[in-house]
Amino acid sequence: MMQVSSICLAAKVPVRVKSLQTNPATINDPTSIAAPKWSQKTITLPPLKRGCHLVTSKPSAQILKEVGLELSGFKCGLAHLFLHHTSASLTINENYDYDVRDDTEIFLNQIVPEGPSAPWKHTLEGADDMPAHIKSSMFGCALTIPITNGKLNMGTWQGIWLCEHRDYPTPRTVVVTLNGI
Amino acid sequence: MMQVSSICLAAKVPVRVKSLQTNPATINDPTSIAAPKWSQKTITLPPLKRGCHLVTSKPSAQILKEVGLELSGFKCGLAHLFLHHTSASLTINENYDYDVRDDTEIFLNQIVPEGPSAPWKHTLEGADDMPAHIKSSMFGCALTIPITNGKLNMGTWQGIWLCEHRDYPTPRTVVVTLNGI
Amino acid sequence: MMQVSSICLAAKVPVRVKSLQTNPATINDPTSIAAPKWSQKTITLPPLKRGCHLVTSKPSAQILKEVGLELSGFKCGLAHLFLHHTSASLTINENYDYDVRDDTEIFLNQIVPEGPSAPWKHTLEGADDMPAHIKSSMFGCALTIPITNGKLNMGTWQGIWLCEHRDYPTPRTVVVTLNGI
Repeated sequence: MMQVSSICLAAKVPVRVKSLQTNPATINDPTSIAAPKWSQKTITLPPLKRGCHLVTSKPSAQILKEVGLELSGFKCGLAHLFLHHTSASLTINENYDYDVRDDTEIFLNQIVPEGPSAPWKHTLEGADDMPAHIKSSMFGCALTIPITNGKLNMGTWQGIWLCEHRDYPTPRTVVVTLNGI
Repeated sequence: MMQVSSICLAAKVPVRVKSLQTNPATINDPTSIAAPKWSQKTITLPPLKRGCHLVTSKPSAQILKEVGLELSGFKCGLAHLFLHHTSASLTINENYDYDVRDDTEIFLNQIVPEGPSAPWKHTLEGADDMPAHIKSSMFGCALTIPITNGKLNMGTWQGIWLCEHRDYPTPRTVVVTLNGI
Repeated sequence: MMQVSSICLAAKVPVRVKSLQTNPATINDPTSIAAPKWSQKTITLPPLKRGCHLVTSKPSAQILKEVGLELSGFKCGLAHLFLHHTSASLTINENYDYDVRDDTEIFLNQIVPEGPSAPWKHTLEGADDMPAHIKSSMFGCALTIPITNGKLNMGTWQGIWLCEHRDYPTPRTVVVTLNGI
C-alpha cells in the first residue's frame, strides 16, 4: 500500500516530493510480514587498462541485463558494491561523454605526484603504486545505490565507473550486496 | 530487551562503549519478530547557488521536523541519501561556522582547474561543467547516516552539505532511503 | 538453501562469479522467516596522533577478536562505520606497509594549504583546523563493508584507516551499525 508524505531536506520554499513507503509489518499477522531479502555475490572483473571505465552502459547491455535480473526481485532496497582493492576505485559520474572519463584521469594524474620527483617512500611496487593508493582513497572503493521497483535508481546521466589506477591491468574483485524487500 | 557488549575498533587501552543491540527475532514466536521497515522518497530541492550549503540546521527547522517525522518510526537503522546528479555532491561537515563552507568552496576551486587554461576536453557544457564532475566524484553523491531512537545519529558539530558545483543553479533530486526496525 | 546465479558488472568476456543468496522468507511458514538483525554501538577511541592509522590489523588482534565476536552472528550483511567528527576521516586502504599511511599524510598536507599563507577565513580554531575539515570531506567520515559468514569481507590487502587531521589528539567517537541475517 502506497503512502505519500512530504519530507524536506533543504528548502525555504516548498519542495516537490514523490514517495514510496512500505507498510510496516503487522506483527500479529505473520502472512503480512515483509520478508527481508539479502543477496551477496563476488564478481571477478577482467583486467581494464589504466583510466576511468563506465561499467553500466551500452554496449555492455548484457551486464545491465544480468544486474537487472538479480535486482528485479527487489521492490525497494539498496545495492552495495565493494571493491576488494586498494589501487583502484569506484565512483558515480557521467555515463554519456567519454571525454569526462578521460578528463578525470588527467585530473587524477595532475593532482597526485608520480615518478622520480614524487615524495613517496612506498616505491617498491612501482612508481604508479603509491599514487594509485591515494586515488583509491580519494574516490573510495565502495558505492551504495538505491533500488526501486527492481532497478538501480540513478539519475539520467549517472553511471558507475571502475577507475583503474595501476599501469599493469589485473583482474578486480567486487562484492555486490543487495538488501531490501 | 537491551543487551550490552563491548567492542574495540582501535585501542591499546580499553575503550568506552555504549551499545544498542536488538534481540534477534524469536522465530517460534511471530509476535516478537522485529518487522523490517523500508521508506524511500524522491525529493526535488529548489535551486541553490554555486557553493556548499548546509541542509540540516536552523533556520530551516521545518526541514528537520519533516525528516524527524519520517525517522521517528525507526528505533535503529540507516538513512541513505543519494543525489541523482554528477555535477553536485553530498558531504558531511561542520554545521556551525559558515566560513567552513566558504573555505571549502575556495579549496575546490583552487584544486580543480577551470577556464581557458584548464586541460579539459569536455567543454561543450561550459567551463564550470568538467570541474563540477570532478568535484562530484571527490566528495561523492551519496551519504549513509545511522538512525538511533528516531533521529539521525550525527556528532554535535556535524551537518549535511549539498555542494552545488555549477554556476547556473538548477533543481537537485535526492533519493532518501530509510531502513531499520 | 544456497542458490547460485551469475551476474556481470563490466565484461566483454565471461566473468567468474561466486555467489551467496539467501532464500526469501516463506511468508506462510513463520518458522522459516529469516529474522532481521540489527546491532548498533557507539565506541569512543582513545586519542591518536595526527596521521593515518590502521585500525584493523595486528598487533591489535584483540580489536579484531571483539569485532569478530559481534560480527559472528551475521551470515550475510553490511557493517557501517560512522565517525562523529568533521576533522578526522575513515578510509579503506593498504593494511601492510606503513609507508603507505605516511605517504598519504604527506599527500594530504601537500594538497591542502595550511599556515599563514593559506587562504582560509576559518582560522579561530587553529591553523590545522580548516585543512582538517577539507581532508575529512575528501576521504569521508563513513564506511560500509560487506559481512560474509561472520566476518568483514575485505580484500587481502585492505584495512580500515582512521585518519586524524588535527595536531592535538582527542578521543574520536564511531557509531558501528551491523545489519543482516
